[in-house]
Amino acid sequence: MAGLIGERMQSAHSPRIPQVTAHLVEAGGKRIRPLLTLAAARMLGYSGAHHRRLAATVEFIHTATLLHDDVVDESRQRRGRPTANLLWDNKSSVLVGDYLFARAFQLMVETGNLRVLEILSNAAAVIAEGEVLQMSTAHNLATDEATYMQVIRGKTAALFAAACETGGVIAGAGEDEIAALRRYGDALGVSFQIADDLLDYGGSTAALGKNTGDDFRERKVTLPVLLAHASGGEGDRAFWQRVIEAGEQREGDLDRAMALMQATGALADTRARALAVAGEARAALQILPGGALRDLLAELSDFVVARIA
Amino acid sequence: MAGLIGERMQSAHSPRIPQVTAHLVEAGGKRIRPLLTLAAARMLGYSGAHHRRLAATVEFIHTATLLHDDVVDESRQRRGRPTANLLWDNKSSVLVGDYLFARAFQLMVETGNLRVLEILSNAAAVIAEGEVLQMSTAHNLATDEATYMQVIRGKTAALFAAACETGGVIAGAGEDEIAALRRYGDALGVSFQIADDLLDYGGSTAALGKNTGDDFRERKVTLPVLLAHASGGEGDRAFWQRVIEAGEQREGDLDRAMALMQATGALADTRARALAVAGEARAALQILPGGALRDLLAELSDFVVARIA
Repeated sequence: MAGLIGERMQSAHSPRIPQVTAHLVEAGGKRIRPLLTLAAARMLGYSGAHHRRLAATVEFIHTATLLHDDVVDESRQRRGRPTANLLWDNKSSVLVGDYLFARAFQLMVETGNLRVLEILSNAAAVIAEGEVLQMSTAHNLATDEATYMQVIRGKTAALFAAACETGGVIAGAGEDEIAALRRYGDALGVSFQIADDLLDYGGSTAALGKNTGDDFRERKVTLPVLLAHASGGEGDRAFWQRVIEAGEQREGDLDRAMALMQATGALADTRARALAVAGEARAALQILPGGALRDLLAELSDFVVARIA
Repeated sequence: MAGLIGERMQSAHSPRIPQVTAHLVEAGGKRIRPLLTLAAARMLGYSGAHHRRLAATVEFIHTATLLHDDVVDESRQRRGRPTANLLWDNKSSVLVGDYLFARAFQLMVETGNLRVLEILSNAAAVIAEGEVLQMSTAHNLATDEATYMQVIRGKTAALFAAACETGGVIAGAGEDEIAALRRYGDALGVSFQIADDLLDYGGSTAALGKNTGDDFRERKVTLPVLLAHASGGEGDRAFWQRVIEAGEQREGDLDRAMALMQATGALADTRARALAVAGEARAALQILPGGALRDLLAELSDFVVARIA
């Protein structure tokens, strides 16, 4: 699959394309999405070559969304390196992202499987919709849990679910198995993202980590904020309105936010939610064929929440 | 088809999406691309409903590229109205563009026709590649005609060709008819874009028009610039290097550029090229079934160059 990604990110005509793509691809990242597709297909007995195309498709869609996200968020760092929009420019990030989307669609069309095409094009729409929704929930403390869940489904779980489901579809798995793969991928993605949002406030111990405070500075209404705001008193609410809605952040505000999250139980609640959903992911695997691949997927569901254990 | 576009640009969750899309869709535009698909399919005897899905797909891809182009070019006006990136922000334009791309793919998957999917996903890749290439040719006088042709194929002709070709494919036309539709669409798009690039320098009479000078200010190396630079003397070349490569533009430079294009015959050559390619478009129609629809397509090939006649 790595060979396929390298081959398809080339462009005979535009050297800027492989430069920008390679910058992101070589930086690594967890490659968890393509792994899901490969493992799901093999677990269900697939012996063809299309699963590699699907895995590359999923990674291309993911890379394209990262390029566009960094433009939207005006990010300066990604995977420990300067972002493409900083090294080149926003234009390159927008256009190379578009190119990767198109290449992803070309790759999935090569599988000749219409059901797979439907699943992945639906996922692409949910992802884009989630991104737009996230933009409009930022700075908005009226965001409710249902909206938060929809944002993280778009941001993370939709592609996780599609990665797993298409692996099963290409392998010709039964409908109950395909549904189980989809549930697993969705739950894995949701728990992964909740854990990420928790880590942004130092995890359950509210200790300062590498990325602590990014969401706070960007005034995103993630689950820890949402829960702390909902269960806080008058004074707490005034604080949240000032830092998140009005955007007036002062020295020490992040510490106070973390302390409030600790005191109201928001961090513990967020952690419990992530663990519960990870448990759902593991449970969904039960009806799937046992063996090394299923064990690997089960371990992944532990792995995504190990960071907040 | 208008109904389908209105319906599919909705989003239950993100009101920003139909707002941004409607802003562009309602502004009108020529709707030439979806018309090509509808006319090609009907001309070849199609009586189903998929051609409307394809027409909407093509319009969505076009609208998505406009949204992203305006971000890339930092445009402030489109179709006589302020651009979406100006009214909302770059983020909305990037993300709503992504959403429309995804919706386009969903729509084309609904046709269940793999060949159509291949043609349109290939076109999407050529479009994105052309945009990246255009970005790297800007300000670069070493750009040759072959590169210019590739840029305008990506920018315009690829989607024109795919719009026509998929109309034929969905109608179950013969291979020679499908090839003719593709040639027609490609030539129509190329002549359309060359005419546009000529009009940016006032057309063959070098008279000031509504958009005159936009390409000059953005220092794009289009055909009139390329030809005038190639056939100019020492002094002319120094001028082009200053205004296009170095970007030092002064009062009166646009007039001088237009005068040089007139004197070197670059405007007349550009016009002749556009007319010749429009003739190729008309000629490609010959083997297709005669009647009102073929007549309409023939008239279109005159129409795209009537502006420079």
